[in-house]
Amino acid sequence: MLKVVQNLGCSSGFLSQLWKKAHHNTPCGLSSIAISTNPLSNSASTRTRRRHPTTTKLDSFVFSTRGTRSERPSRVCETRSESNPDATTSPSSSSAGNVSKINFCQWCGGPTKHDIPDGEEKMRAICTVCDKIAYQNPKMVVGCLIEHDKKILLCKRNIEPSYGLWTLPAGYMEIGESAADGAIRETWEEAGADVEVESPFAQLDIPLIGQTYVIFLAKMKKPHFSPGPESSECRLFDLDDIPFDSLAFSSIFVSLNLYIDDIRSGKLKFHYGTINKRPGSSPSDMHAFSLDNHLQC
Amino acid sequence: MLKVVQNLGCSSGFLSQLWKKAHHNTPCGLSSIAISTNPLSNSASTRTRRRHPTTTKLDSFVFSTRGTRSERPSRVCETRSESNPDATTSPSSSSAGNVSKINFCQWCGGPTKHDIPDGEEKMRAICTVCDKIAYQNPKMVVGCLIEHDKKILLCKRNIEPSYGLWTLPAGYMEIGESAADGAIRETWEEAGADVEVESPFAQLDIPLIGQTYVIFLAKMKKPHFSPGPESSECRLFDLDDIPFDSLAFSSIFVSLNLYIDDIRSGKLKFHYGTINKRPGSSPSDMHAFSLDNHLQC
Repeated sequence: MLKVVQNLGCSSGFLSQLWKKAHHNTPCGLSSIAISTNPLSNSASTRTRRRHPTTTKLDSFVFSTRGTRSERPSRVCETRSESNPDATTSPSSSSAGNVSKINFCQWCGGPTKHDIPDGEEKMRAICTVCDKIAYQNPKMVVGCLIEHDKKILLCKRNIEPSYGLWTLPAGYMEIGESAADGAIRETWEEAGADVEVESPFAQLDIPLIGQTYVIFLAKMKKPHFSPGPESSECRLFDLDDIPFDSLAFSSIFVSLNLYIDDIRSGKLKFHYGTINKRPGSSPSDMHAFSLDNHLQC
Repeated sequence: MLKVVQNLGCSSGFLSQLWKKAHHNTPCGLSSIAISTNPLSNSASTRTRRRHPTTTKLDSFVFSTRGTRSERPSRVCETRSESNPDATTSPSSSSAGNVSKINFCQWCGGPTKHDIPDGEEKMRAICTVCDKIAYQNPKMVVGCLIEHDKKILLCKRNIEPSYGLWTLPAGYMEIGESAADGAIRETWEEAGADVEVESPFAQLDIPLIGQTYVIFLAKMKKPHFSPGPESSECRLFDLDDIPFDSLAFSSIFVSLNLYIDDIRSGKLKFHYGTINKRPGSSPSDMHAFSLDNHLQC
Protein backbone atom coordinates (compact mmCIF):
# COMPACT_ATOMS: atom_id res chain seq x y z
CA MET A 1 0.00 0.00 0.00
CA LEU A 2 1.31 3.41 -0.91
CA LYS A 3 0.54 6.22 1.45
CA VAL A 4 1.20 9.65 0.13
CA VAL A 5 1.44 12.90 1.98
CA GLN A 6 1.56 15.90 -0.28
CA ASN A 7 2.07 19.42 0.97
CA LEU A 8 0.62 21.92 -1.44
CA GLY A 9 -0.68 25.40 -1.54
CA CYS A 10 2.44 27.11 -0.26
CA SER A 11 3.80 29.96 -2.28
CA SER A 12 7.22 30.04 -0.70
CA GLY A 13 7.32 27.32 1.91
CA PHE A 14 9.44 24.21 2.22
CA LEU A 15 7.26 22.20 -0.09
CA SER A 16 7.51 18.50 -0.39
CA GLN A 17 5.73 15.46 -1.67
CA LEU A 18 6.20 12.60 0.71
CA TRP A 19 5.59 8.99 -0.13
CA LYS A 20 5.44 6.68 2.79
CA LYS A 21 5.35 3.08 1.86
CA ALA A 22 4.06 0.73 4.48
CA HIS A 23 6.65 -2.02 4.79
CA HIS A 24 6.94 -3.99 7.98
CA ASN A 25 5.59 -0.95 9.77
CA THR A 26 8.60 1.14 8.76
CA PRO A 27 7.71 4.76 8.19
CA CYS A 28 10.33 5.13 5.46
CA GLY A 29 9.29 6.49 2.12
CA LEU A 30 10.40 8.15 -1.09
CA SER A 31 9.93 11.70 -2.17
CA SER A 32 11.43 14.34 -4.38
CA ILE A 33 11.57 17.73 -2.80
CA ALA A 34 11.66 21.16 -4.29
CA ILE A 35 13.16 23.71 -2.00
CA SER A 36 12.65 27.42 -1.57
CA THR A 37 14.37 29.82 0.75
CA ASN A 38 11.78 30.59 3.38
CA PRO A 39 10.59 27.38 4.98
CA LEU A 40 8.84 29.06 7.85
CA SER A 41 6.41 30.83 5.61
CA ASN A 42 4.74 27.49 4.87
CA SER A 43 1.36 28.17 6.35
CA ALA A 44 -0.99 25.82 4.55
CA SER A 45 -0.95 22.20 3.60
CA THR A 46 -3.24 19.75 1.91
CA ARG A 47 -3.05 15.99 2.13
CA THR A 48 -3.99 13.76 -0.72
CA ARG A 49 -3.10 10.38 -2.19
CA ARG A 50 -1.18 9.57 -5.33
CA ARG A 51 -0.02 6.30 -6.70
CA HIS A 52 3.42 7.30 -7.93
CA PRO A 53 6.11 9.73 -6.87
CA THR A 54 6.25 12.93 -8.85
CA THR A 55 8.05 16.20 -8.42
CA THR A 56 6.47 19.58 -8.28
CA LYS A 57 8.59 22.26 -9.89
CA LEU A 58 7.88 25.11 -7.59
CA ASP A 59 10.22 27.93 -8.37
CA SER A 60 13.55 28.85 -9.82
CA PHE A 61 15.44 26.99 -7.11
CA VAL A 62 14.71 23.67 -8.76
CA PHE A 63 16.84 23.06 -11.82
CA SER A 64 16.01 19.43 -12.33
CA THR A 65 13.93 16.71 -10.79
CA ARG A 66 14.32 12.98 -10.71
CA GLY A 67 11.52 11.06 -9.14
CA THR A 68 12.21 7.71 -10.73
CA ARG A 69 15.23 5.57 -11.48
CA SER A 70 16.43 4.37 -14.83
CA GLU A 71 15.69 0.78 -15.75
CA ARG A 72 19.22 -0.38 -15.16
CA PRO A 73 21.80 0.83 -12.67
CA SER A 74 24.47 2.90 -14.34
CA ARG A 75 27.53 4.86 -13.34
CA VAL A 76 27.51 8.63 -13.27
CA CYS A 77 30.96 9.99 -13.91
CA GLU A 78 30.61 13.74 -14.05
CA THR A 79 32.42 15.50 -11.26
CA ARG A 80 33.96 18.88 -10.70
CA SER A 81 35.90 20.90 -8.21
CA GLU A 82 33.89 21.52 -5.24
CA SER A 83 32.15 23.26 -2.45
CA ASN A 84 33.45 21.40 0.54
CA PRO A 85 33.66 23.09 3.92
CA ASP A 86 37.36 22.32 4.30
CA ALA A 87 38.59 23.10 0.82
CA THR A 88 41.21 25.55 1.95
CA THR A 89 42.82 22.95 4.17
CA SER A 90 42.28 19.94 1.96
CA PRO A 91 44.06 20.42 -1.35
CA SER A 92 43.51 16.81 -2.32
CA SER A 93 39.78 17.23 -2.25
CA SER A 94 39.89 19.95 -4.85
CA SER A 95 40.57 17.29 -7.45
CA ALA A 96 37.94 14.84 -6.23
CA GLY A 97 37.05 12.53 -9.05
CA ASN A 98 39.27 14.23 -11.59
CA VAL A 99 41.51 11.31 -12.41
CA SER A 100 43.47 13.32 -14.96
CA LYS A 101 45.07 15.29 -12.13
CA ILE A 102 46.73 12.18 -10.71
CA ASN A 103 50.02 12.18 -12.59
CA PHE A 104 52.22 10.02 -10.36
CA CYS A 105 51.94 6.88 -8.25
CA GLN A 106 51.93 7.80 -4.56
CA TRP A 107 53.54 4.49 -3.65
CA CYS A 108 56.44 4.13 -6.11
CA GLY A 109 56.56 7.56 -7.78
CA GLY A 110 56.12 6.15 -11.29
CA PRO A 111 54.15 8.09 -13.90
CA THR A 112 50.51 7.13 -14.32
CA LYS A 113 48.43 6.42 -17.37
CA HIS A 114 44.72 7.14 -17.47
CA ASP A 115 42.77 4.14 -18.68
CA ILE A 116 39.88 1.82 -17.86
CA PRO A 117 41.33 -1.25 -16.10
CA ASP A 118 40.31 -4.74 -17.23
CA GLY A 119 36.99 -5.73 -15.68
CA GLU A 120 36.08 -2.18 -14.73
CA GLU A 121 34.07 0.56 -16.38
CA LYS A 122 35.56 3.76 -15.07
CA MET A 123 38.68 5.71 -15.98
CA ARG A 124 41.43 5.32 -13.38
CA ALA A 125 44.99 6.50 -12.85
CA ILE A 126 47.16 3.38 -13.20
CA CYS A 127 50.85 3.33 -12.37
CA THR A 128 52.96 2.43 -15.41
CA VAL A 129 55.68 1.00 -13.16
CA CYS A 130 53.96 -0.97 -10.35
CA ASP A 131 50.50 -1.24 -11.95
CA LYS A 132 48.71 -0.04 -8.81
CA ILE A 133 45.47 1.83 -9.33
CA ALA A 134 44.77 5.11 -7.51
CA TYR A 135 41.10 4.70 -6.61
CA GLN A 136 39.20 7.80 -5.62
CA ASN A 137 36.10 7.63 -3.48
CA PRO A 138 33.58 10.11 -2.09
CA LYS A 139 34.45 11.88 1.13
CA MET A 140 32.20 12.01 4.15
CA VAL A 141 31.50 15.37 5.77
CA VAL A 142 30.18 14.95 9.31
CA GLY A 143 28.52 17.58 11.44
CA CYS A 144 26.05 18.43 14.18
CA LEU A 145 22.71 20.18 14.23
CA ILE A 146 22.63 21.48 17.80
CA GLU A 147 19.43 22.67 19.37
CA HIS A 148 19.60 24.67 22.58
CA ASP A 149 16.57 26.43 24.09
CA LYS A 150 14.72 25.96 20.79
CA LYS A 151 17.54 27.70 18.94
CA ILE A 152 20.08 26.31 16.47
CA LEU A 153 23.82 26.86 16.73
CA LEU A 154 25.39 28.19 13.53
CA CYS A 155 28.97 29.23 12.70
CA LYS A 156 29.98 32.08 10.42
CA ARG A 157 32.77 30.86 8.18
CA ASN A 158 36.15 32.53 8.59
CA ILE A 159 37.65 30.67 5.63
CA GLU A 160 36.90 30.04 1.98
CA PRO A 161 34.81 28.70 0.40
CA SER A 162 31.72 30.61 1.46
CA TYR A 163 33.66 33.02 3.67
CA GLY A 164 31.30 35.05 5.85
CA LEU A 165 28.33 32.73 5.33
CA TRP A 166 26.64 30.60 7.99
CA THR A 167 26.94 26.86 8.41
CA LEU A 168 26.48 24.00 10.82
CA PRO A 169 29.74 22.86 12.44
CA ALA A 170 30.95 20.12 10.07
CA GLY A 171 34.05 18.84 8.35
CA TYR A 172 35.75 15.84 6.83
CA MET A 173 35.56 12.58 8.72
CA GLU A 174 39.02 11.20 9.50
CA ILE A 175 40.21 7.63 9.26
CA GLY A 176 40.23 6.11 12.75
CA GLU A 177 37.10 7.81 14.04
CA SER A 178 33.38 7.15 13.74
CA ALA A 179 31.09 9.61 11.99
CA ALA A 180 29.57 10.59 15.34
CA ASP A 181 32.96 11.15 16.93
CA GLY A 182 34.04 13.14 13.88
CA ALA A 183 30.95 15.34 14.15
CA ILE A 184 31.67 15.89 17.85
CA ARG A 185 35.30 16.76 17.06
CA GLU A 186 34.37 19.20 14.29
CA THR A 187 31.85 20.89 16.57
CA TRP A 188 34.52 21.32 19.21
CA GLU A 189 37.03 22.68 16.67
CA GLU A 190 34.67 25.08 14.88
CA ALA A 191 32.23 26.12 17.62
CA GLY A 192 34.06 25.37 20.88
CA ALA A 193 30.99 23.42 21.97
CA ASP A 194 31.24 20.11 23.78
CA VAL A 195 28.30 18.08 22.52
CA GLU A 196 26.84 14.62 22.70
CA VAL A 197 25.17 13.07 19.70
CA GLU A 198 21.53 12.13 20.22
CA SER A 199 20.50 10.65 16.91
CA PRO A 200 21.39 10.46 13.23
CA PHE A 201 19.40 13.06 11.30
CA ALA A 202 20.40 13.11 7.64
CA GLN A 203 22.61 11.55 5.01
CA LEU A 204 22.82 13.79 1.95
CA ASP A 205 24.88 12.65 -1.02
CA ILE A 206 26.21 15.26 -3.45
CA PRO A 207 27.39 13.19 -6.44
CA LEU A 208 28.63 16.16 -8.46
CA ILE A 209 31.35 16.95 -5.94
CA GLY A 210 31.93 13.49 -4.50
CA GLN A 211 30.73 14.25 -0.99
CA THR A 212 28.29 12.74 1.46
CA TYR A 213 27.06 14.80 4.40
CA VAL A 214 26.15 12.94 7.59
CA ILE A 215 24.40 15.22 10.08
CA PHE A 216 23.58 14.27 13.66
CA LEU A 217 21.23 15.90 16.13
CA ALA A 218 23.26 16.86 19.18
CA LYS A 219 23.03 18.66 22.50
CA MET A 220 25.59 20.81 24.28
CA LYS A 221 26.78 19.21 27.51
CA LYS A 222 27.28 22.71 28.91
CA PRO A 223 25.72 25.88 27.49
CA HIS A 224 29.01 27.21 26.18
CA PHE A 225 30.38 27.86 22.70
CA SER A 226 32.97 30.11 21.10
CA PRO A 227 34.31 30.36 17.56
CA GLY A 228 37.35 28.31 16.61
CA PRO A 229 39.91 29.44 14.02
CA GLU A 230 37.67 28.54 11.07
CA SER A 231 34.73 30.57 12.43
CA SER A 232 34.45 34.32 12.94
CA GLU A 233 31.30 34.03 15.02
CA CYS A 234 29.00 31.41 16.52
CA ARG A 235 25.43 32.24 17.36
CA LEU A 236 22.17 30.60 18.45
CA PHE A 237 19.34 31.38 16.03
CA ASP A 238 15.62 31.13 16.62
CA LEU A 239 14.08 28.94 13.94
CA ASP A 240 12.29 32.03 12.61
CA ASP A 241 15.57 33.89 12.26
CA ILE A 242 17.81 31.34 10.55
CA PRO A 243 19.66 33.27 7.81
CA PHE A 244 18.49 31.21 4.85
CA ASP A 245 19.68 33.87 2.42
CA SER A 246 23.27 33.63 3.65
CA LEU A 247 23.96 29.95 4.22
CA ALA A 248 27.27 28.50 3.09
CA PHE A 249 26.27 25.20 1.45
CA SER A 250 23.27 23.53 -0.13
CA SER A 251 23.65 20.61 2.29
CA ILE A 252 23.22 22.96 5.25
CA PHE A 253 20.26 24.62 3.59
CA VAL A 254 18.58 21.26 3.07
CA SER A 255 19.38 20.01 6.57
CA LEU A 256 17.92 23.08 8.23
CA ASN A 257 14.85 22.97 6.02
CA LEU A 258 14.24 19.31 6.81
CA TYR A 259 14.71 19.99 10.51
CA ILE A 260 12.19 22.81 10.51
CA ASP A 261 9.80 20.66 8.49
CA ASP A 262 10.14 17.91 11.10
CA ILE A 263 9.69 20.31 14.01
CA ARG A 264 6.60 21.67 12.35
CA SER A 265 5.21 18.16 11.84
CA GLY A 266 5.96 17.24 15.44
CA LYS A 267 8.25 14.32 14.64
CA LEU A 268 11.96 14.26 13.96
CA LYS A 269 12.95 11.69 11.36
CA PHE A 270 16.05 10.33 9.65
CA HIS A 271 16.43 11.65 6.12
CA TYR A 272 18.33 10.25 3.16
CA GLY A 273 18.56 12.09 -0.12
CA THR A 274 20.64 13.18 -3.08
CA ILE A 275 21.50 16.82 -3.68
CA ASN A 276 21.91 17.26 -7.41
CA LYS A 277 23.75 20.48 -8.02
CA ARG A 278 23.84 22.37 -11.28
CA PRO A 279 27.36 22.00 -12.71
CA GLY A 280 29.28 25.23 -12.34
CA SER A 281 27.17 26.59 -9.53
CA SER A 282 28.81 28.05 -6.45
CA PRO A 283 28.69 26.26 -3.08
CA SER A 284 26.30 28.83 -1.66
CA ASP A 285 24.00 29.14 -4.67
CA MET A 286 20.66 28.01 -3.28
CA HIS A 287 19.04 28.42 -6.70
CA ALA A 288 21.04 25.65 -8.30
CA PHE A 289 20.15 22.27 -6.86
CA SER A 290 17.35 19.85 -6.18
CA LEU A 291 16.90 17.26 -3.46
CA ASP A 292 16.03 13.98 -5.16
CA ASN A 293 15.02 10.51 -4.07
CA HIS A 294 14.30 11.71 -0.57
CA LEU A 295 13.68 8.82 1.85
CA GLN A 296 12.75 9.30 5.47
CA CYS A 297 12.31 7.02 8.45
CA MET B 1 13.04 11.19 29.95
CA LEU B 2 15.05 8.08 29.32
CA LYS B 3 13.19 5.03 28.24
CA VAL B 4 15.12 1.83 28.38
CA VAL B 5 14.32 -1.46 26.79
CA GLN B 6 16.53 -4.25 27.91
CA ASN B 7 16.34 -7.72 26.45
CA LEU B 8 17.56 -10.27 28.93
CA GLY B 9 17.27 -13.92 29.68
CA CYS B 10 18.52 -15.13 26.33
CA SER B 11 21.33 -17.64 26.38
CA SER B 12 22.30 -17.27 22.76
CA GLY B 13 20.00 -14.70 21.20
CA PHE B 14 20.72 -11.31 19.62
CA LEU B 15 20.84 -9.56 22.96
CA SER B 16 20.70 -5.85 23.25
CA GLN B 17 20.05 -3.02 25.62
CA LEU B 18 18.16 -0.28 23.91
CA TRP B 19 17.86 3.22 25.20
CA LYS B 20 15.20 5.29 23.58
CA LYS B 21 15.29 8.90 24.49
CA ALA B 22 12.14 10.84 23.96
CA HIS B 23 13.07 13.95 22.01
CA HIS B 24 10.56 15.76 19.89
CA ASN B 25 8.80 12.44 19.48
CA THR B 26 11.77 10.96 17.69
CA PRO B 27 12.19 7.28 18.45
CA CYS B 28 15.98 7.52 18.19
CA GLY B 29 18.06 6.24 21.08
CA LEU B 30 21.42 4.98 22.20
CA SER B 31 22.45 1.47 23.00
CA SER B 32 25.48 -0.73 23.14
CA ILE B 33 24.92 -4.16 21.77
CA ALA B 34 26.63 -7.41 22.43
CA ILE B 35 26.23 -9.84 19.60
CA SER B 36 26.14 -13.60 19.46
CA THR B 37 25.91 -15.86 16.46
CA ASN B 38 22.37 -17.19 16.62
CA PRO B 39 19.92 -14.31 16.72
CA LEU B 40 16.90 -16.42 16.01
CA SER B 41 17.24 -18.46 19.16
CA ASN B 42 16.23 -15.41 21.20
CA SER B 43 13.04 -16.74 22.74
CA ALA B 44 12.53 -14.65 25.85
CA SER B 45 12.78 -11.01 26.75
CA THR B 46 12.25 -8.83 29.78
CA ARG B 47 11.69 -5.09 29.75
CA THR B 48 12.95 -2.87 32.50
CA ARG B 49 14.07 0.72 33.01
CA ARG B 50 17.54 2.06 33.69
CA ARG B 51 18.76 5.57 33.96
CA HIS B 52 22.02 5.25 32.06
CA PRO B 53 23.31 3.18 29.19
CA THR B 54 25.35 0.18 30.17
CA THR B 55 26.63 -2.79 28.26
CA THR B 56 26.05 -6.38 29.13
CA LYS B 57 29.02 -8.58 28.37
CA LEU B 58 27.28 -11.66 27.21
CA ASP B 59 29.77 -14.01 25.72
CA SER B 60 33.11 -14.31 24.07
CA PHE B 61 32.01 -12.35 21.01
CA VAL B 62 32.29 -9.09 22.90
CA PHE B 63 35.87 -7.93 23.29
CA SER B 64 35.14 -4.43 24.47
CA THR B 65 32.22 -2.20 25.30
CA ARG B 66 31.80 1.53 25.23
CA GLY B 67 28.55 2.93 26.48
CA THR B 68 29.71 6.45 27.19
CA ARG B 69 31.87 9.05 25.51
CA SER B 70 35.00 10.67 26.81
CA GLU B 71 34.68 14.17 28.23
CA ARG B 72 36.32 15.86 25.29
CA PRO B 73 36.30 14.92 21.66
CA SER B 74 39.58 13.43 20.55
CA ARG B 75 41.06 11.91 17.45
CA VAL B 76 41.55 8.19 17.18
CA CYS B 77 44.41 7.40 14.86
CA GLU B 78 44.90 3.66 14.99
CA THR B 79 44.24 2.00 11.68
CA ARG B 80 45.33 -1.14 9.94
CA SER B 81 45.02 -2.95 6.66
CA GLU B 82 41.61 -4.13 6.17
CA SER B 83 38.68 -6.35 5.60
CA ASN B 84 36.96 -4.54 2.78
CA PRO B 85 34.80 -6.37 0.30
CA ASP B 86 36.73 -5.05 -2.67
CA ALA B 87 40.26 -5.35 -1.38
CA THR B 88 41.49 -7.39 -4.28
CA THR B 89 40.41 -4.76 -6.76
CA SER B 90 41.25 -1.71 -4.68
CA PRO B 91 44.96 -1.62 -3.93
CA SER B 92 44.77 1.91 -2.60
CA SER B 93 42.43 0.85 0.14
CA SER B 94 44.91 -1.62 1.55
CA SER B 95 46.89 1.31 2.90
CA ALA B 96 43.90 3.17 4.29
CA GLY B 97 45.11 5.50 6.99
CA ASN B 98 48.70 4.38 6.79
CA VAL B 99 50.28 7.68 5.84
CA SER B 100 53.79 6.20 5.86
CA LYS B 101 52.98 4.29 2.68
CA ILE B 102 52.46 7.52 0.74
CA ASN B 103 55.97 8.18 -0.54
CA PHE B 104 55.35 10.49 -3.49
CA CYS B 105 53.07 13.38 -4.42
CA GLN B 106 50.43 12.20 -6.87
CA TRP B 107 50.22 15.66 -8.45
CA CYS B 108 53.88 16.65 -9.02
CA GLY B 109 55.76 13.42 -8.26
CA GLY B 110 57.89 15.01 -5.53
CA PRO B 111 58.95 12.97 -2.50
CA THR B 112 56.78 13.37 0.58
CA LYS B 113 57.66 13.97 4.21
CA HIS B 114 55.48 12.67 7.01
CA ASP B 115 54.69 15.40 9.49
CA ILE B 116 51.84 17.16 11.31
CA PRO B 117 50.96 20.29 9.28
CA ASP B 118 50.60 23.64 11.04
CA GLY B 119 47.18 23.96 12.62
CA GLU B 120 46.45 20.25 12.44
CA GLU B 121 46.86 17.36 14.84
CA LYS B 122 47.33 14.35 12.63
CA MET B 123 50.32 13.01 10.73
CA ARG B 124 50.03 13.62 6.98
CA ALA B 125 52.07 12.99 3.86
CA ILE B 126 53.22 16.43 2.67
CA CYS B 127 54.94 17.01 -0.66
CA THR B 128 58.42 18.47 -0.20
CA VAL B 129 58.21 20.14 -3.62
CA CYS B 130 54.69 21.59 -4.02
CA ASP B 131 53.64 21.43 -0.33
CA LYS B 132 50.34 19.73 -1.11
CA ILE B 133 48.98 17.41 1.56
CA ALA B 134 47.69 13.93 0.66
CA TYR B 135 44.62 13.67 2.87
CA GLN B 136 43.15 10.24 3.44
CA ASN B 137 39.54 9.75 4.41
CA PRO B 138 37.27 6.82 5.23
CA LYS B 139 35.66 4.96 2.35
CA MET B 140 31.97 4.27 2.06
CA VAL B 141 30.81 0.74 1.29
CA VAL B 142 27.25 0.70 0.02
CA GLY B 143 24.99 -2.31 -0.30
CA CYS B 144 21.48 -3.73 -0.29
CA LEU B 145 19.57 -5.97 2.07
CA ILE B 146 17.04 -7.51 -0.30
CA GLU B 147 14.00 -9.30 1.00
CA HIS B 148 11.99 -11.49 -1.35
CA ASP B 149 9.20 -13.79 -0.19
CA LYS B 150 10.41 -13.38 3.40
CA LYS B 151 13.89 -14.52 2.37
CA ILE B 152 17.16 -12.58 2.15
CA LEU B 153 19.44 -12.57 -0.89
CA LEU B 154 23.06 -13.40 -0.07
CA CYS B 155 26.12 -13.81 -2.31
CA LYS B 156 28.94 -16.30 -1.79
CA ARG B 157 32.23 -14.52 -2.36
CA ASN B 158 34.31 -15.66 -5.30
CA ILE B 159 37.21 -13.36 -4.37
CA GLU B 160 39.37 -12.60 -1.38
CA PRO B 161 39.05 -11.49 1.34
CA SER B 162 36.58 -13.95 2.84
CA TYR B 163 36.52 -16.17 -0.25
CA GLY B 164 33.68 -18.69 -0.02
CA LEU B 165 31.82 -16.83 2.73
CA TRP B 166 28.40 -15.19 2.42
CA THR B 167 27.71 -11.47 2.19
CA LEU B 168 25.14 -8.91 1.17
CA PRO B 169 25.82 -7.38 -2.26
CA ALA B 170 27.96 -4.34 -1.42
CA GLY B 171 31.04 -2.46 -2.57
CA TYR B 172 32.80 0.87 -2.63
CA MET B 173 30.75 3.92 -3.50
CA GLU B 174 32.15 5.76 -6.51
CA ILE B 175 32.55 9.47 -7.01
CA GLY B 176 29.69 10.71 -9.18
CA GLU B 177 26.97 8.46 -7.78
CA SER B 178 24.73 8.56 -4.73
CA ALA B 179 24.97 5.91 -2.03
CA ALA B 180 21.63 4.47 -3.13
CA ASP B 181 22.69 4.33 -6.78
CA GLY B 182 25.99 2.75 -5.73
CA ALA B 183 24.14 0.08 -3.75
CA ILE B 184 21.89 -0.62 -6.75
CA ARG B 185 24.95 -0.85 -9.02
CA GLU B 186 26.82 -3.21 -6.69
CA THR B 187 23.74 -5.42 -6.41
CA TRP B 188 23.52 -5.61 -10.17
CA GLU B 189 27.22 -6.39 -10.51
CA GLU B 190 27.46 -9.00 -7.74
CA ALA B 191 24.02 -10.59 -7.76
CA GLY B 192 22.60 -9.78 -11.22
CA ALA B 193 19.52 -8.42 -9.47
CA ASP B 194 17.78 -5.26 -10.60
CA VAL B 195 16.54 -3.62 -7.41
CA GLU B 196 14.94 -0.46 -6.16
CA VAL B 197 15.91 1.02 -2.83
CA GLU B 198 13.04 1.33 -0.36
CA SER B 199 14.68 2.89 2.69
CA PRO B 200 18.00 3.48 4.42
CA PHE B 201 18.57 0.74 6.98
CA ALA B 202 21.97 1.10 8.62
CA GLN B 203 25.13 3.18 8.79
CA LEU B 204 27.93 1.22 10.46
CA ASP B 205 31.30 2.87 10.92
CA ILE B 206 34.39 0.67 11.31
CA PRO B 207 37.08 3.11 12.52
CA LEU B 208 39.86 0.53 12.69
CA ILE B 209 39.81 -0.02 8.95
CA GLY B 210 38.56 3.40 7.80
CA GLN B 211 35.26 2.20 6.38
CA THR B 212 31.61 3.14 6.72
CA TYR B 213 28.93 0.71 5.58
CA VAL B 214 25.65 2.17 4.33
CA ILE B 215 23.03 -0.53 3.87
CA PHE B 216 19.65 0.03 2.20
CA LEU B 217 16.54 -2.12 2.26
CA ALA B 218 15.68 -2.96 -1.32
CA LYS B 219 13.31 -5.01 -3.45
CA MET B 220 13.92 -6.85 -6.71
CA LYS B 221 11.99 -5.33 -9.60
CA LYS B 222 11.79 -8.80 -11.13
CA PRO B 223 12.38 -12.06 -9.26
CA HIS B 224 15.65 -12.76 -10.98
CA PHE B 225 19.26 -12.95 -9.80
CA SER B 226 22.46 -14.65 -10.88
CA PRO B 227 26.02 -14.45 -9.60
CA GLY B 228 28.37 -11.89 -11.12
CA PRO B 229 32.14 -12.42 -11.45
CA GLU B 230 32.79 -11.66 -7.76
CA SER B 231 30.22 -14.21 -6.57
CA SER B 232 30.23 -18.00 -6.97
CA GLU B 233 26.60 -18.34 -5.91
CA CYS B 234 23.59 -16.22 -4.97
CA ARG B 235 20.81 -17.66 -2.89
CA LEU B 236 17.67 -16.62 -1.03
CA PHE B 237 17.80 -17.66 2.62
CA ASP B 238 14.98 -18.05 5.07
CA LEU B 239 15.65 -15.94 8.14
CA ASP B 240 15.99 -19.16 10.12
CA ASP B 241 18.64 -20.46 7.76
CA ILE B 242 20.98 -17.48 7.36
CA PRO B 243 24.51 -18.90 7.61
CA PHE B 244 25.68 -16.84 10.58
CA ASP B 245 28.68 -19.10 11.06
CA SER B 246 30.00 -18.40 7.57
CA LEU B 247 29.44 -14.69 6.94
CA ALA B 248 32.17 -12.65 5.28
CA PHE B 249 32.26 -9.45 7.35
CA SER B 250 31.28 -8.16 10.77
CA SER B 251 29.24 -5.39 9.12
CA ILE B 252 27.10 -7.99 7.34
CA PHE B 253 26.73 -9.98 10.54
CA VAL B 254 25.53 -6.88 12.39
CA SER B 255 23.21 -5.77 9.59
CA LEU B 256 21.49 -9.15 9.38
CA ASN B 257 21.18 -9.36 13.15
CA LEU B 258 19.63 -5.91 13.36
CA TYR B 259 17.26 -6.76 10.54
CA ILE B 260 16.09 -9.94 12.24
CA ASP B 261 15.74 -8.06 15.52
CA ASP B 262 13.57 -5.48 13.76
CA ILE B 263 11.46 -8.12 12.02
CA ARG B 264 10.95 -9.82 15.36
CA SER B 265 9.92 -6.54 16.98
CA GLY B 266 7.52 -5.80 14.14
CA LYS B 267 9.13 -2.49 13.14
CA LEU B 268 12.01 -1.81 10.78
CA LYS B 269 14.21 1.08 11.91
CA PHE B 270 17.26 3.02 10.80
CA HIS B 271 20.37 2.03 12.73
CA TYR B 272 23.60 3.92 13.31
CA GLY B 273 26.51 2.38 15.16
CA THR B 274 30.24 1.82 15.43
CA ILE B 275 31.80 -1.58 14.90
CA ASN B 276 34.95 -1.70 17.00
CA LYS B 277 37.08 -4.55 15.77
CA ARG B 278 39.89 -6.15 17.70
CA PRO B 279 43.16 -5.14 16.00
CA GLY B 280 44.62 -8.03 14.06
CA SER B 281 41.35 -9.92 13.73
CA SER B 282 40.30 -11.30 10.36
CA PRO B 283 37.40 -9.79 8.39
CA SER B 284 35.20 -12.81 9.08
CA ASP B 285 36.05 -13.26 12.78
CA MET B 286 32.69 -12.77 14.46
CA HIS B 287 34.29 -13.19 17.90
CA ALA B 288 36.36 -10.04 17.64
CA PHE B 289 34.19 -6.96 17.61
CA SER B 290 31.51 -5.04 19.44
CA LEU B 291 28.76 -2.75 18.20
CA ASP B 292 28.99 0.45 20.22
CA ASN B 293 26.98 3.66 20.50
CA HIS B 294 24.06 2.13 18.67
CA LEU B 295 21.40 4.70 17.77
CA GLN B 296 18.14 3.81 16.10
CA CYS B 297 15.27 5.77 14.64
